[in-house]
Amino acid sequence: MSQLPRGTRDFTPEEMYIRRYIEESIRKTFLSFGYGEVQTPTFEHLELFTAKSGQSIINELYNFTDKSGRELTLRPELTAPVIRFYVERLQMEPKPLKLFYLGNCFRYDRPQKGRYREFWQAGCELIGADTPEAYAELIALAYTILHNIGLKDFHLNLGNLSLIQALFKKLSVSVNDQKNLLPLIDKSQFDELLDALKCLGLSSQIAEEVVALLQTSDIPQIQNFFNDTPEVHKELLKLRQIITLLQQSFQIPDVSVKLSIVRGLDYYKGLVFEIEAPKLGAEKQLCGGGSYDLVGLFGGKDVPTAGFAIGFDRSILALETQNVIFPKPALDIYIIPYDETCIEKSFELAQLLRKDDYQVDVDLLRRGIGKSLKFASTKNARHAIILGPDELNRNVVMLRDMRSGEQQSIPVAELLTYLKKSRT
Amino acid sequence: MSQLPRGTRDFTPEEMYIRRYIEESIRKTFLSFGYGEVQTPTFEHLELFTAKSGQSIINELYNFTDKSGRELTLRPELTAPVIRFYVERLQMEPKPLKLFYLGNCFRYDRPQKGRYREFWQAGCELIGADTPEAYAELIALAYTILHNIGLKDFHLNLGNLSLIQALFKKLSVSVNDQKNLLPLIDKSQFDELLDALKCLGLSSQIAEEVVALLQTSDIPQIQNFFNDTPEVHKELLKLRQIITLLQQSFQIPDVSVKLSIVRGLDYYKGLVFEIEAPKLGAEKQLCGGGSYDLVGLFGGKDVPTAGFAIGFDRSILALETQNVIFPKPALDIYIIPYDETCIEKSFELAQLLRKDDYQVDVDLLRRGIGKSLKFASTKNARHAIILGPDELNRNVVMLRDMRSGEQQSIPVAELLTYLKKSRT
Repeated sequence: MSQLPRGTRDFTPEEMYIRRYIEESIRKTFLSFGYGEVQTPTFEHLELFTAKSGQSIINELYNFTDKSGRELTLRPELTAPVIRFYVERLQMEPKPLKLFYLGNCFRYDRPQKGRYREFWQAGCELIGADTPEAYAELIALAYTILHNIGLKDFHLNLGNLSLIQALFKKLSVSVNDQKNLLPLIDKSQFDELLDALKCLGLSSQIAEEVVALLQTSDIPQIQNFFNDTPEVHKELLKLRQIITLLQQSFQIPDVSVKLSIVRGLDYYKGLVFEIEAPKLGAEKQLCGGGSYDLVGLFGGKDVPTAGFAIGFDRSILALETQNVIFPKPALDIYIIPYDETCIEKSFELAQLLRKDDYQVDVDLLRRGIGKSLKFASTKNARHAIILGPDELNRNVVMLRDMRSGEQQSIPVAELLTYLKKSRT
Repeated sequence: MSQLPRGTRDFTPEEMYIRRYIEESIRKTFLSFGYGEVQTPTFEHLELFTAKSGQSIINELYNFTDKSGRELTLRPELTAPVIRFYVERLQMEPKPLKLFYLGNCFRYDRPQKGRYREFWQAGCELIGADTPEAYAELIALAYTILHNIGLKDFHLNLGNLSLIQALFKKLSVSVNDQKNLLPLIDKSQFDELLDALKCLGLSSQIAEEVVALLQTSDIPQIQNFFNDTPEVHKELLKLRQIITLLQQSFQIPDVSVKLSIVRGLDYYKGLVFEIEAPKLGAEKQLCGGGSYDLVGLFGGKDVPTAGFAIGFDRSILALETQNVIFPKPALDIYIIPYDETCIEKSFELAQLLRKDDYQVDVDLLRRGIGKSLKFASTKNARHAIILGPDELNRNVVMLRDMRSGEQQSIPVAELLTYLKKSRT
């Protein structure tokens, strides 16, 4: 017998109810910020991702050759596909262009808690705007999405890759040496970094200053460090303007600068940011984003681009560790035909109620009333209606409140009004 | 530069707005019938589909070998995955179990109008109920979904594979000969069928009776034909009960019997049905379904199963040929900061309005008012707000009705109340 493929998941009705509820909240927030949803295919030409990330990414891909010899791959992320779409068809759209997506991605990775081979991302791309307010709004959007789904305990960190580049230049670190330092910076392994900097011939004092710089959230300290580097003054001013907007206009109190954020240096440029849920441990990063260059690489006309992606599965995990009470699927009414003569009328009534947006189920198995009421309970039905020949003759229904167990006879003509009242 | 893979599609914000709107309507209808949504992985073990449909299906699949040597395939349909899920994890759930899905499927097929290599299906499986009312409700659900998305011109046909089997038995048609006849029946090639029946040695009269039987919608005529075949009397009675329920309880006037529906004879058993939109020509079939056996094949305990799948893309095509007016993405408010000093307050106001569920965009490019108003028009903004230093001092905003072009000054404190009124 065939089984669920390793690293993937089946979702039950209870799980899907929660996932759709959160998806709907995310979609609503994107739309409220003036973003429009796009969708791209589940698979792309392999070259799209190797062009962006190099050949080594193939190790993590579900890539395959189709029946005409095309090299294809399941998408590992959605920025490259959306930018491909932009370059192919959307370049003439008025700017700025605000595009969002909610989609599944695939990575051939060792499955573990919070990491799956098929996972979902919610993200967006902002094309054609690079003012401080454009970046501030983008970051605030990521923050607001997580806030609106009910997340409480999370934190926003801003970095800037131009400052890291300036730092390397100031210290005359070669490109090769940069490659050794970046993973240490990225993983906040500051003791190892200190040693590595000293090995490069830097004095203890300077090495310690650099490590302090990468850990501080104090802008004056950062400014002080770059005092003699005028080419980054503009970048620093912009960072301050973004932080002011985030605090003042978007009321985000807990914004930190964290220069050690060095998400993929060949791809991102300038501003980068992360949102973390500290309680999630190794899987704490919920969102990552920043400004990047990709349009030119894909053959389009240069234009500023920035975006972010939120891990949908991890965000749900974060909500669960927070013991959020999620909504549950439920029925409004379960209808029980008393006997075979009442079946036609039962479905007629069901159809009437469904037209009025009630979620209605009817016994399909001709069980007795006791068994049917038990089944109605397992379906979280709010009410049950028992329809017997006597009720049919008198044009009434027997309505049972499934919480209190109380039953009352109600004329069919008054049923909708009664239910409407009890729904509010 | 990498391009969109052949046979797949990118969807613009305008298209996605329509697709999500229709998806939401479909989901709501499934829920109103007491169905719960499930989701299965995008790829499955290849054997899942070869077990169901034989080796020949591989020609139509996007199958591949993963990095651990697993034979996988992108799913070509969703019934097999949902039944696999049922067998693995849901067999102990109370019956009947009503499961629905909205998902993408993949077929390596020649792309043409209404046929894509990645396409979407909405469908369901009803597990554990085979009463006439169970089937009637299932068929009515498919009908109601298409009705609720706004489709007008479509038609429901019912068939029954037990009757076809009885017909073959009555005529002593060998299994091999059946294989030649079935495609002719399926494609309604009745002239060719008549010749083929005569070739099998049937008299002209009987061959003509058979062809007439396959074309009639008249139940007494069908009953008459099977008068001497008592084993199908029960099946015929059930068919009549289903039709009565569809007409009386579910108010579906246009139900036809069409015995020439012979959807995959090894898979479906007994009742089958199709819904067609005649105006769509070759791609007119919007929905197909019926009762089938698959649980046993996948190692589960035998249980009645039935379901259907609706072509999501084709249904949208059908709505388009019907010239349905679809909703369009729009902004409630576009905010224009008069100059740099007004940027902070503009985003503060935007955030306030977004909290109240308005879709709000703010000029991110520091354009002049004229250009910003033009941009607001391209975004279908209902209102524009111009925020200048003078307005800020007086604690008012300049609100512009984008349809009439009228402008008025409104105190910030009264803005929400004013907008609420103009929204209704």
